[in-house]
Amino acid sequence: MNTQRPRVVIIGAGFGGLYAARHLEGKAVDVLIIDRQNFHTFTPLLYQVATCGLDPSEIAYPIRSIFDAPNIQFVMGKVTSIDLTNRQVEIALNGQTRIESYDYLIVAAGSTTNFFGNSDLEQFAFGLKDLQEAVKIRHHILHLFEKATWTEEPEAREALTTIVVVGGGPTGLETSGALHELYNHVLNREYQFENLHARVVLVEAVDRLLLPYPENLQRAAQHQLESLGVEVILNDPVDKLQGNQLILKSGHIIPTSTVIWTAGVKASPLAEMLGVELKRGGRVPVEPTMEVIGQEAVYVVGDMAYLEDDEGQAYPMLIPVAKQEGILAAQNILRRTNGESQKPFQYHDRGIMATIGRRRAVAWIYNRIPLTGFIAWLAWLGLHLLWLMGFRNRLNVLVNWIWNYLTYDRSVRIILQPQSNQSAAD
Amino acid sequence: MNTQRPRVVIIGAGFGGLYAARHLEGKAVDVLIIDRQNFHTFTPLLYQVATCGLDPSEIAYPIRSIFDAPNIQFVMGKVTSIDLTNRQVEIALNGQTRIESYDYLIVAAGSTTNFFGNSDLEQFAFGLKDLQEAVKIRHHILHLFEKATWTEEPEAREALTTIVVVGGGPTGLETSGALHELYNHVLNREYQFENLHARVVLVEAVDRLLLPYPENLQRAAQHQLESLGVEVILNDPVDKLQGNQLILKSGHIIPTSTVIWTAGVKASPLAEMLGVELKRGGRVPVEPTMEVIGQEAVYVVGDMAYLEDDEGQAYPMLIPVAKQEGILAAQNILRRTNGESQKPFQYHDRGIMATIGRRRAVAWIYNRIPLTGFIAWLAWLGLHLLWLMGFRNRLNVLVNWIWNYLTYDRSVRIILQPQSNQSAAD
Repeated sequence: MNTQRPRVVIIGAGFGGLYAARHLEGKAVDVLIIDRQNFHTFTPLLYQVATCGLDPSEIAYPIRSIFDAPNIQFVMGKVTSIDLTNRQVEIALNGQTRIESYDYLIVAAGSTTNFFGNSDLEQFAFGLKDLQEAVKIRHHILHLFEKATWTEEPEAREALTTIVVVGGGPTGLETSGALHELYNHVLNREYQFENLHARVVLVEAVDRLLLPYPENLQRAAQHQLESLGVEVILNDPVDKLQGNQLILKSGHIIPTSTVIWTAGVKASPLAEMLGVELKRGGRVPVEPTMEVIGQEAVYVVGDMAYLEDDEGQAYPMLIPVAKQEGILAAQNILRRTNGESQKPFQYHDRGIMATIGRRRAVAWIYNRIPLTGFIAWLAWLGLHLLWLMGFRNRLNVLVNWIWNYLTYDRSVRIILQPQSNQSAAD
Repeated sequence: MNTQRPRVVIIGAGFGGLYAARHLEGKAVDVLIIDRQNFHTFTPLLYQVATCGLDPSEIAYPIRSIFDAPNIQFVMGKVTSIDLTNRQVEIALNGQTRIESYDYLIVAAGSTTNFFGNSDLEQFAFGLKDLQEAVKIRHHILHLFEKATWTEEPEAREALTTIVVVGGGPTGLETSGALHELYNHVLNREYQFENLHARVVLVEAVDRLLLPYPENLQRAAQHQLESLGVEVILNDPVDKLQGNQLILKSGHIIPTSTVIWTAGVKASPLAEMLGVELKRGGRVPVEPTMEVIGQEAVYVVGDMAYLEDDEGQAYPMLIPVAKQEGILAAQNILRRTNGESQKPFQYHDRGIMATIGRRRAVAWIYNRIPLTGFIAWLAWLGLHLLWLMGFRNRLNVLVNWIWNYLTYDRSVRIILQPQSNQSAAD
């Protein structure tokens, strides 16, 4: 296993880890990617899996099939400990453990849902951070509608057919918009309930949606969401979840069997293995080179990394940031192996966008040009198609099926166990 | 709930139940379909889901979206008892129960895997009768290969990468052929094992494959399977499963972690609720009209029904038989409601076919014309495409995804819990 070439171990095959690995393909280093899943997830479309729009495998891609460079290896398993002094990582897979040594370590294990210590929410609310959670939500929602057909009692039925999405960020908007369409255009047609009023409620703690956006786009987003039929409640944080009731700080009570929590994320618990004091959200403070402060040879990228821009603002937990940080970490490692000096992180911000529903979206291109409505939605659609196709080129299920016969290829190779938990790669 | 119109309750939304319901669409009866799943499964392609060729949702279709006739209703649930004297069915769904009355009952709950009382097999071997089992097999196989990368020890690794398929029927052939392609053309490429010899072994108790076929086709099937690389063992029944060893009656030992059992099926346990003495395989003896012998107003169709042809042979457990029996039961119920006399079952046999792998198949058209190899495979492909498209018209994942936005349609609406068990509809 050992070679003269420096060995780079990458923890997590999300966007940060994947782009780091891609940059090291064919270079004079040996790379080992570690992930708890055997696939990379195209997370921007998770909400569509949760809302019955897409198949899990349509937004997931087997890691082994992404790389064919001989210097990139993959092992599926959970990182159980990191030995920073001996530069070793311990991995576990169903009871077995193994040790992998590294010369350089890139930790890109992403983030998980943050319930801020509310145990009721932790137990009963749904996160939407990985494919398993998305599939769980889908099964749950479909199950509730079947249960609702067993209930004549209107109050009980209302709780079954009311979904509350907590969090006014992009995920919250996308999910509530897509749910509303699923409810009132698909399920309503097929379930003949007398006077069914299927509700989708979006709850946000502060007084506006999409915090980082300019005010006109925030208002546009809210208007589009409400025009769709989603009930938006602002300025009212969640107090507690009690049986089939979500209770807000104002005392407002929403009868519901389904709370989807998109109101907070925190860095992967792996951050605690890196021997530094963590920043807000459990993120790991890094140098502009992406090296962990005080930890030579260990890089952290993506949602896990805490790095401030010139205004002293931490870079947001966004895919473009993760990609660019992953590439920089890879570049800096190569620079070090060549005895060159490392370069600091410079974020190339192309802007932010969020889709709300069919023909509805907002975009803030280069943080200068605001777009709303149909054109913003087209932009969102086009860009995500491009990005997705970068991972999959699966145009057609039918062709695909015949193709499987002719090319010996198989596209659906995803280990999915809905009962299991977060992905290290997310 | 009660109306003047006669009420037909159909248990099971497999091919028998579905075609019965389709025939009753828009007729002067009220129809209630009961199934444990919320979807119909296109079972001929289950083996492709198990072998990573297709997504579950690509061969499943939500029952509610199949019918829009107002006289067809659906309830998801498990039938817990049948009261033949009061003509009532009891259904359960997560703890709740409800009673549905019928004037006519069509029982089409299909069949389940028959391990012939071998508890080891029952516990450790995989059945391939429904979508959950297919997904389980897929996860299991993919997991084994990951586990194999954790093992340097060749013997242990061989057991992990050897699959035994028991049963020389169509399912056994299709599964072993597809597995061999998955192994030696997809997985082998991506898992860099030194000297990995991934084996697929097909075990059959009697001295030939595809019993109902003429001898030349049986030989052709075996030849094609072996030319693909599948090891075929004939005339050697399974004795027992011991740890990671499958032991045959001859004493022959195959080290394996995966046994897929396609060597037997039995009628759904619902058969025992019908108050008649059951035939071989737990099947329910029926009149040529598909009425349960001695049970007025109760029809049994498909795999559950035991009916002999003119030569005294029981009609086989095949989809065409189930379809035709389902339609006849529906017709006879309508005839009775019109005071007409019922008609007996006449099987229109278009022949049988089995695919073995890419460009390999055997067909016995109208039980007269034998086809083998590429042409038989093309025939198989074309027919199954047609049949599948009858249930789904999902040409293209990409189009589909945009389509979801424009038409408000959602195609992926399948409740799948890999841990759960057989479907009443299968």
